[in-house]
Amino acid sequence: MLQRKSRSPEAAYVSELLKAKPLAETVDPFDCVARELELVEENLARSIRSAESSLTDIAGHTILGGGKRLRPIIALLAFKAFGGKKLEDVVDIATALELIHTATLLHDDIIDGAETRRGKESAYKKFGLKSTLVAGDFLFIKAFEFAGKFDDTVVQWTADACTRLTEGEILQEIFNRNTDVTIDDYLEIVKRKTACLFQTGAKIGTYQAGARAALVEDMDSYGLNLGIAFQMIDDVLDVVGHKELLGKPTGIDLRDGNPSLPIILALNAKQAAVVEAFESSHPNERQIHAAIAAMEASPVIETARELSRTYAEKALGPVKKLPPSLYRNALKTLIQLIVERNF
Amino acid sequence: MLQRKSRSPEAAYVSELLKAKPLAETVDPFDCVARELELVEENLARSIRSAESSLTDIAGHTILGGGKRLRPIIALLAFKAFGGKKLEDVVDIATALELIHTATLLHDDIIDGAETRRGKESAYKKFGLKSTLVAGDFLFIKAFEFAGKFDDTVVQWTADACTRLTEGEILQEIFNRNTDVTIDDYLEIVKRKTACLFQTGAKIGTYQAGARAALVEDMDSYGLNLGIAFQMIDDVLDVVGHKELLGKPTGIDLRDGNPSLPIILALNAKQAAVVEAFESSHPNERQIHAAIAAMEASPVIETARELSRTYAEKALGPVKKLPPSLYRNALKTLIQLIVERNF
Repeated sequence: MLQRKSRSPEAAYVSELLKAKPLAETVDPFDCVARELELVEENLARSIRSAESSLTDIAGHTILGGGKRLRPIIALLAFKAFGGKKLEDVVDIATALELIHTATLLHDDIIDGAETRRGKESAYKKFGLKSTLVAGDFLFIKAFEFAGKFDDTVVQWTADACTRLTEGEILQEIFNRNTDVTIDDYLEIVKRKTACLFQTGAKIGTYQAGARAALVEDMDSYGLNLGIAFQMIDDVLDVVGHKELLGKPTGIDLRDGNPSLPIILALNAKQAAVVEAFESSHPNERQIHAAIAAMEASPVIETARELSRTYAEKALGPVKKLPPSLYRNALKTLIQLIVERNF
Repeated sequence: MLQRKSRSPEAAYVSELLKAKPLAETVDPFDCVARELELVEENLARSIRSAESSLTDIAGHTILGGGKRLRPIIALLAFKAFGGKKLEDVVDIATALELIHTATLLHDDIIDGAETRRGKESAYKKFGLKSTLVAGDFLFIKAFEFAGKFDDTVVQWTADACTRLTEGEILQEIFNRNTDVTIDDYLEIVKRKTACLFQTGAKIGTYQAGARAALVEDMDSYGLNLGIAFQMIDDVLDVVGHKELLGKPTGIDLRDGNPSLPIILALNAKQAAVVEAFESSHPNERQIHAAIAAMEASPVIETARELSRTYAEKALGPVKKLPPSLYRNALKTLIQLIVERNF
């Protein structure tokens, strides 16, 4: 069984310090843990093998379909930033987080009736409801296989994150096409539906490196705030993004009735076109375009970006406290990449 | 973390031996582990509490909806039969098996479009697809929370059982309304879809009691064969059972196009009414009734019962090798109850 490491992380910094740069310098987070990510990829490829080829096909369609691997990257960077050395202490749990994320994508596509995912036909559209549902269960189970090897604390944190994911899904349903939704409701949904896996990745990576409880909590806050900032930008891109870059059409939140940040800000500003499209159970293309045009022409996009920067700033706090290392800089660069991305 | 016990189980039999009866005497399996089952019930009731009341409602609708708790009972009886003493070594994993079973029921009801479950409206019918799907995920996660505390072997066996469940579901879909289905295909589906949780319960209960590997394998075979016998009787009751006793209408397998044992036997015997109803994508009531009447009037029901008794006999083998105890007799009685049941 993989155990928490008790060795002081300080000792492990020496070689990292030699490579350290000033915090202002950017370090590519993907390059920084390229070797570790390869192990995660091998795990993922192995985990989707099944006696039933259709399970392998569906799981592979989504798992190998161009995900950014943000959740594993966060766990790996946190682990390395705190001097974690033995990769078997983090690679399997990083894999589990990506598997959980992918399982929820499959089930979310069923719930939202999504036609596309990452520029391709969604698994739901391609393979149908029944097989996609079972493939989602299959990936949850594979995640359990990877996560179940860790100690009770890691198992509990992972299970808690999953529970929050399901609760976030239910909460989002409650506020579907519901104009009573507030920014507080939004934050509650986002914390549970998106941020919790970022948060749990950062927290577990730090814990597995053997860091003190206070540092684990700091990094929990890094993941949480980064996850919130990430979702806010996702919401902005659903209004102003480019279909080709995003790999999906824009206006999905309006079509699905999901209360995104720009939509809530526009509802607060009583933008008639947005109210009309959001309340309509089947908004037509004219309504969608009118609502998007109204949001683009108003300050809601800039306000949403501004809010996202606020959370990015909160995520930066714990990074500033880290001792210098490539991984510290990569954790900072990751915030910038997420907030400044256009896909 | 709960660990496997290394103490020889023989020592623990002394008090049991004093209470032991000849194997021919029946012992109520439910009474025999009533106290342990209460702990499982407490676990189940606690596990469905969620911040989102709808998750609690849906999970409760199914978890507290009259399940027989066969999978926990098998794990508990095996544990006690091999002298297991510390209940914390078995109660949580017994709970996990029931949670997994219930999660699959919720997802199966979506896949089959089931209207009723245990005499009540199905969760799918009552709460809708989206919430029922998420509630199934929620129960899988709770199962993971309970199972993840055990050692790597138990985690792996539990995950393997879950994987087989999903593969069984896919395999069943492949043979849906497919007249090419053979008895061998049927056994493969049943082993994965039904028997594997019986098998895993018996195996883990024995392992957690500290029994030798050969005994663990013996009890694995008990669970596997009992599970097959159970499903065969389930299939028979779907033809000849009473709606009130079953808590669901008969003829579901024909309506859903599921290849049950009597249907396969009838297809082999070229019963025209059964071929017609099974191949029809939406068989009408006349077709269903004609197919049921044809099966009832033919030897297929008796042949199916006979096959079920063959597997019951195989399950009995390992029980006969057990040292005398109340639990040994209860394991035997459980076989009888399952094969002779009419609901």
